[in-house]
Amino acid sequence: MARLFHVPLSPYCRKVRLSLAEKKIEVELVEERYWEQDPDFLRRNPAGKVPVLRLDGQVMAESAAICEYIEETRPEPPLMPKKPEARYEVRRLVGWFDDKFHHEVTSRLLYERVNKKVTGEGYPDSKNVKAGAKAIKYHLDYMAWLLDHRRWLAGDQMTLADFAAAAHLSALDYISDVDWNRSQAVKDWYAKIKSRPAFRSILADQVPGFRPPPHYADLDF
Amino acid sequence: MARLFHVPLSPYCRKVRLSLAEKKIEVELVEERYWEQDPDFLRRNPAGKVPVLRLDGQVMAESAAICEYIEETRPEPPLMPKKPEARYEVRRLVGWFDDKFHHEVTSRLLYERVNKKVTGEGYPDSKNVKAGAKAIKYHLDYMAWLLDHRRWLAGDQMTLADFAAAAHLSALDYISDVDWNRSQAVKDWYAKIKSRPAFRSILADQVPGFRPPPHYADLDF
Repeated sequence: MARLFHVPLSPYCRKVRLSLAEKKIEVELVEERYWEQDPDFLRRNPAGKVPVLRLDGQVMAESAAICEYIEETRPEPPLMPKKPEARYEVRRLVGWFDDKFHHEVTSRLLYERVNKKVTGEGYPDSKNVKAGAKAIKYHLDYMAWLLDHRRWLAGDQMTLADFAAAAHLSALDYISDVDWNRSQAVKDWYAKIKSRPAFRSILADQVPGFRPPPHYADLDF
Repeated sequence: MARLFHVPLSPYCRKVRLSLAEKKIEVELVEERYWEQDPDFLRRNPAGKVPVLRLDGQVMAESAAICEYIEETRPEPPLMPKKPEARYEVRRLVGWFDDKFHHEVTSRLLYERVNKKVTGEGYPDSKNVKAGAKAIKYHLDYMAWLLDHRRWLAGDQMTLADFAAAAHLSALDYISDVDWNRSQAVKDWYAKIKSRPAFRSILADQVPGFRPPPHYADLDF
């Protein structure tokens, strides 16, 4: 069986979990305290990060590379469109969320509030939290703008771009950092993706010391 | 003709330039002072970053997505292998350099020494420069380890992984921050990639206020 070394609230791990679940690939989840840099773990991934996936007899790291590999070896159901222009747009948006959104929002909210506590690095820096809370508004508006003329973020089908975005937003929703009232279009999009069977394991996550808000796992939030 | 909005020492722009040149796609280079956040430029890329490429009537951003698009629409000569396992390894290494190497090395050396001056943000932070100078040694050793049993970084053929690595290293070489004596294998690899016609435009770059060392453009360095 596939095995994923992960931490529950990592958006990169969640993106891989969503891909695996959507493709109906069974996986054993193993929580990895990657920040302790255990030598066994570093052998699996010299970059010292999660996710790390064991699949098809290989050990793989880097969530974008992993998701492309899953897509190439298990094309059904497709999480990438066929045309190069449309594939470009998916990859652009995956980069948008995993790079820009991560840098401006996730690292300033989730990492400040949760990771610092879990890894013993101390207290949240309120300047960062404030900047993250401001930046997420701009990103939600950008998503609303995309969804104004598209069914899903990258076009008419659900793709890895939706999973990348939902991975970040679901982790932030766990700590009540998403204002779902800002955009009906974004809320509807999230309700749609949240109700997929692939999302179940993510909605069942529990992080000791952090209790999610009641709406976190509610499909009619 | 294709048009690339870029800055000369950006490793992400250099990776795209190398891909375009290797595929013999003619491109007009336009220097973009992206940090000034000109509204026209932000319309082309709301992320406000370079590279931005105009090709096939589209405007594209995010270097990884751009390079995959070029590969899919111009497969010859190939910069990606055929097998999913090998393609995974290329993408993992592109991620390694564009994420980890960038974070640990490029942002601490190139951005401190050059970008801060160019954008008027002030002087290099010596703590960062020191940390970057230390980290590059570890990365050169990792490359040497890969090249110990491979002709190119990701395997037996030259791929986007080599271009990603060469893009970062060439930009750092421009400011004399690469110790080529650390590993003969890495030096030989760089000599090989540097001598390709695709590299010519990069070796001809000139940044006002920063003069490259004599060996920068020397193929027998």
